[in-house]
Amino acid sequence: MKGYVSIGLLGLGTVGTGVVKLIQHHQEQLVHQVGCPVSIEKILVKNLEKEREVEIDQSLLTDDPYDVVLNPNIDIVVEVMGGIDETRQYLLEALKAKKHIVTANKDLIALHGSELQSTAVENQCDLFYEASVAGGVPIIRGLTDGLSSDRIQKLMGIVNGTTNFILTKMDKDGLSYEKALSDAQELGFAEADPTADVEGLDAARKMAILARLAFSMNIELDDVEVSGISQISKEDLKYGSTLGYTMKLIGYAHQENERAEVSVQPTFLPNGHPLATVNDEYNAVYVYGEAVGETMFYGPGAGSLPTATSVVSDIVAVVKNMRLNVTGQSHLSPQFPKQLKNQNEKIAKYFIRLHVLDEVGAFAELTRLFSANAISFEKILQLPLDEKGLAEIVIVTHRATMQDYENVVQEIKNLSVVKEIKSFYRVEGDGAK
Amino acid sequence: MKGYVSIGLLGLGTVGTGVVKLIQHHQEQLVHQVGCPVSIEKILVKNLEKEREVEIDQSLLTDDPYDVVLNPNIDIVVEVMGGIDETRQYLLEALKAKKHIVTANKDLIALHGSELQSTAVENQCDLFYEASVAGGVPIIRGLTDGLSSDRIQKLMGIVNGTTNFILTKMDKDGLSYEKALSDAQELGFAEADPTADVEGLDAARKMAILARLAFSMNIELDDVEVSGISQISKEDLKYGSTLGYTMKLIGYAHQENERAEVSVQPTFLPNGHPLATVNDEYNAVYVYGEAVGETMFYGPGAGSLPTATSVVSDIVAVVKNMRLNVTGQSHLSPQFPKQLKNQNEKIAKYFIRLHVLDEVGAFAELTRLFSANAISFEKILQLPLDEKGLAEIVIVTHRATMQDYENVVQEIKNLSVVKEIKSFYRVEGDGAK
Repeated sequence: MKGYVSIGLLGLGTVGTGVVKLIQHHQEQLVHQVGCPVSIEKILVKNLEKEREVEIDQSLLTDDPYDVVLNPNIDIVVEVMGGIDETRQYLLEALKAKKHIVTANKDLIALHGSELQSTAVENQCDLFYEASVAGGVPIIRGLTDGLSSDRIQKLMGIVNGTTNFILTKMDKDGLSYEKALSDAQELGFAEADPTADVEGLDAARKMAILARLAFSMNIELDDVEVSGISQISKEDLKYGSTLGYTMKLIGYAHQENERAEVSVQPTFLPNGHPLATVNDEYNAVYVYGEAVGETMFYGPGAGSLPTATSVVSDIVAVVKNMRLNVTGQSHLSPQFPKQLKNQNEKIAKYFIRLHVLDEVGAFAELTRLFSANAISFEKILQLPLDEKGLAEIVIVTHRATMQDYENVVQEIKNLSVVKEIKSFYRVEGDGAK
Repeated sequence: MKGYVSIGLLGLGTVGTGVVKLIQHHQEQLVHQVGCPVSIEKILVKNLEKEREVEIDQSLLTDDPYDVVLNPNIDIVVEVMGGIDETRQYLLEALKAKKHIVTANKDLIALHGSELQSTAVENQCDLFYEASVAGGVPIIRGLTDGLSSDRIQKLMGIVNGTTNFILTKMDKDGLSYEKALSDAQELGFAEADPTADVEGLDAARKMAILARLAFSMNIELDDVEVSGISQISKEDLKYGSTLGYTMKLIGYAHQENERAEVSVQPTFLPNGHPLATVNDEYNAVYVYGEAVGETMFYGPGAGSLPTATSVVSDIVAVVKNMRLNVTGQSHLSPQFPKQLKNQNEKIAKYFIRLHVLDEVGAFAELTRLFSANAISFEKILQLPLDEKGLAEIVIVTHRATMQDYENVVQEIKNLSVVKEIKSFYRVEGDGAK
């Protein structure tokens, strides 16, 4: 091995620029940590002429990706360009050329993480992607290092800052979904087309990555059930609050008897739950492991500086592994076959809000129907509605299977006294279940 | 360097036993992480004959500490025996014999951390103590690795499980301090003599360690102002709750203009603060850094398994550093001279509860006095008391200096309408201040 480590960057946007700055400004500290200098060899950019926010020798820039991907002097390829198909191709070629990879690309890892991982292992290369899930929250290292001797039973995450910002505004300031979204857009917390965030897809990608690591099972993006926040009303939040709950978009991963479920869905948390106070654009991941019990990681979740910091700590980890001669072993291949729970194995409490004809016997009919499907009530709220002849009924159930819920919802729809099912949200219970 | 790393243990109690088990059961994983085997060479025990919970070759046991401390075959001394003076002596001798140290001993590090650290640096040895602060919460690594390029402005911790358990019981179940303490003792969360926990000394030791690292300043135990929870009444919690606060024993470290303050004191947190939902025996440390913003680490804080896991991850870090030839550099010596804030530089909001004569002009007199001392009110609650002729007044102030509070408290005592100052607690504001 030569006396220093060379980095090639794919991309020089805000994160890439942050990485270059951190490496330039902390060279001495890096040498202390890893025992040798780290230098930047080549950087792929779209436009060679563009002015840069950081001082870079012009000769380091290239617009040919293969100057990085197949450069014989480069040890570590740092991918901060984004994109999926082309980027996947570059990284596969880099791995085959025995280059280690650090990437911040969540979409790529969610879709092609397994393929990239196995290619990395075949070539004894490291593939690290701490920055892909929640920049500034060291959750991936937490799952792979610290807790590696523990069996993880449950993982819950607030992993999308945009939706958490919107829900916080709706909850604290009483804004409508539409107003909260437009505020988020004005402040730069939501994109002009917010679909991927508000419909839960961004969170689903992160949950696929986290569940794969937590359960050591080849969970794919398609295995994650997704629903977003665009249907949530102020009324839902108000009734939830009355009953002692806070609404969050929760990524939920649970395993029991080596069978897993992974979802992203609006969820009512008891106000005292550690995730209930994670507000605004912040992210947090809560992990329940058999040995260590509950742990939680909380942080900014995004932002170019936290993300660049995560990328640099991945680079440090790769350099250490190179010098220790243990690359390609940090993330082991999935140890367990993928087995997903069926609807009878998924168990939860639900918040159900209904509009019902305000007549004698309506509530009794409803009760009988739930009871016949083995679902009992933990909390009930009944209020008259302004609309004449209708009542609002809010129910929080005890734990029951998804199969039972599906049956009951079907039967409710056939019930003449029920005018409409207004909402149906998962309710987080207490403890590890 | 020989082809494996040898460990010597000082102590074989519950944590030591856990460390031995983890090393025995995860040998293959350890080799994957560090690139060479890790073996146990010698273990200091008090009683050679005692039956052990773990399978150990009898020849590994010794009752002579110098069989470990000066053993030429041992690379890393793992100290899990506790104690201060004698233990300090052993570790200093071990460092001078070029042995790296991993310790779980908070009392020792709080009192003699600086001396041990500088001896370690002189001998190019590592000294790691992740398990000393909050077993299972990787806060020390967070402060030394991940955030190392960031300037930390504020750190707040719930770092004592016993007091957090007691306060949670008082708050949620309405128990008195005495009843909550005896419950904690029955459940094993508090010792027969709970003084060190309930008077805040245990938390102060941990805060000295954390503040030293966070501010890179030689903070000593005596620099930590301490008050405990034994004076807190159910009434305080009730009024706090009415005003939207939750009471926690908070370790508080703040720096501004390179001047620091460190304290442990009962503190009212806004209910929405991330630390407000850290309940029961759990620990959490909240860090505000200039670059990364808010991060929080949450976990069990104690327990033999989490603590042993922290010890083993320190061992892994030392072995990596040994093989990278970068030992003795991980924790740099303090970079800034110790400067503590004076009373005019410490700024906070306070919760003040008073018993006042229920007569015309009493409240006006009180207001005038606070106003004359530049302290204004954010929230006021006045209620009649059962005791005839008295009123209860609860005030939450805006931010003011400790000097102003000291003056106002002195003057209140001279006020004839004020019968008694019942309580005086710090109130945490929002954000980084």
